[in-house]
Amino acid sequence: MNEYIGRVEADLKKYNAHSHATDPQKNLIEAMNYSLEAGGKRIRPVLVYAFCEALGGDLDTAAAPAAAIEMIHTFSLIHDDLPAMDNDDFRRGKPSCHKAYGEAMAILAGDALSVLPYEIIADDTQLTAEQKVMLISLVARAAGKSGMIGGQVIDMESEGKTDLTEAELENLYRRKTGELISVSCVMGCMCAGTASPDVLYSAADYGFKLGLAFQVIDDILDVTSTTEELGKPVGSDAEENKTTYVSLFGLEKARETANKLTNEAMACLDIIEDNSFLKQLTEMLLNRKN
Amino acid sequence: MNEYIGRVEADLKKYNAHSHATDPQKNLIEAMNYSLEAGGKRIRPVLVYAFCEALGGDLDTAAAPAAAIEMIHTFSLIHDDLPAMDNDDFRRGKPSCHKAYGEAMAILAGDALSVLPYEIIADDTQLTAEQKVMLISLVARAAGKSGMIGGQVIDMESEGKTDLTEAELENLYRRKTGELISVSCVMGCMCAGTASPDVLYSAADYGFKLGLAFQVIDDILDVTSTTEELGKPVGSDAEENKTTYVSLFGLEKARETANKLTNEAMACLDIIEDNSFLKQLTEMLLNRKN
Repeated sequence: MNEYIGRVEADLKKYNAHSHATDPQKNLIEAMNYSLEAGGKRIRPVLVYAFCEALGGDLDTAAAPAAAIEMIHTFSLIHDDLPAMDNDDFRRGKPSCHKAYGEAMAILAGDALSVLPYEIIADDTQLTAEQKVMLISLVARAAGKSGMIGGQVIDMESEGKTDLTEAELENLYRRKTGELISVSCVMGCMCAGTASPDVLYSAADYGFKLGLAFQVIDDILDVTSTTEELGKPVGSDAEENKTTYVSLFGLEKARETANKLTNEAMACLDIIEDNSFLKQLTEMLLNRKN
Repeated sequence: MNEYIGRVEADLKKYNAHSHATDPQKNLIEAMNYSLEAGGKRIRPVLVYAFCEALGGDLDTAAAPAAAIEMIHTFSLIHDDLPAMDNDDFRRGKPSCHKAYGEAMAILAGDALSVLPYEIIADDTQLTAEQKVMLISLVARAAGKSGMIGGQVIDMESEGKTDLTEAELENLYRRKTGELISVSCVMGCMCAGTASPDVLYSAADYGFKLGLAFQVIDDILDVTSTTEELGKPVGSDAEENKTTYVSLFGLEKARETANKLTNEAMACLDIIEDNSFLKQLTEMLLNRKN
């Protein structure tokens, strides 16, 4: 885990190179780096690396796709936090991008981080043209109007609705979180270049299950954790009248669902021989405290 | 011109297909279409088509790149108009996207239009994988932190500065407008697949000259046109204390500069045999009234 995270941190620095102090757009690069360096779990790029390695791929081929997926995640967080969106002043204990750099710069830093992923994949020297085209198609689709951004819209329009059905909530989580996590797993397989269609399908399915389990556990932690442990205010879902797995089914059933999804995710990994790290990671995410 | 514009309008509709009324993110697609359909001069996609055809290429190969570049331009206009940015309530006589759909939806519609271009180029069936990778690299670079978005940042940070030098103003215009216009020309050449390095270089140079001339003419029209003719309030540059070619050099010298740049742009076209439409287009843009 730490080896992968070390690679991710180094890649993000490399791909969003610091500019000279005299560059006219140096504040933009700074704002981008500010949010990229804010940390977080780095789950998506770790999954790219882990699937690539589990399938016997060269980790260097996964560097650009791993950085790309973390940039897309970061861009979505920057725009999510904006006053017109969730209006969050803090992100991981630090002022959010618009609090640190102003709203206009945060919009533009998010925009620049939404574009850079395609440049770094296209310009990579390890991947073939065919691999690059597939990776770009997958990641743009997962990020776009029917994926992550579509999920944001559904989330926004569900605000204040306490009567979402389980299917609606699952659809929302699938797009908002599942698509990007699932595509991370598939991208890792594609970098290895050896995955059969069955393995690709299982990796995609694993990612959706893991992403959904991740959201259900978020719902649980919002009720059971402390602000100190979670690093952000607890109880915000109930305060904002959000439909969650806990509000729909209660805590016990939500825990069962998280366990069930995690077991199903685990089962998807059985097709991969060298799956011990991926199984550990899955277990760790189920038992996380924040 | 009308044939090209007809193609662009049809492509934009096709690539951002209307979703069913029951799709949960249908309002997002609607907001995207609202801004895509708002019209404008369609200069960038017309240049993609015109360079492709001038070099003997099949226009169908240019469809995805042409739509892609217009989407990027549209995404930048939607985010530019936001309250935290230029705070413009109208765009081409219609309410701007955030006035029609709300600020959060406008942010997300811009985001979705910044991602879709890479998906449609990657998924195109006419271009080779190598062409796609080059096109994606070019367009992401032209849009990104050192291109259009970088230019926006410089523009924003230059607000209220009346003492920009000519070099600073040219650098700002080059990034904010020139990069995307220049890359449109180069993309057209790449779609044709027959361009020599000399032709590619001349096309890029033509685009930068044309983009700069375009901005100088904007500066002139802001002083000499009427609100009726221009379709937006005139005199806004002086009101906002903006450095422009007119404020730096006066009207007469600005007109000379626009003529000089247009002539230089024309000269770049001499390397292309079948350049008559491109020369007409260049002339038309010099003499435009809005």
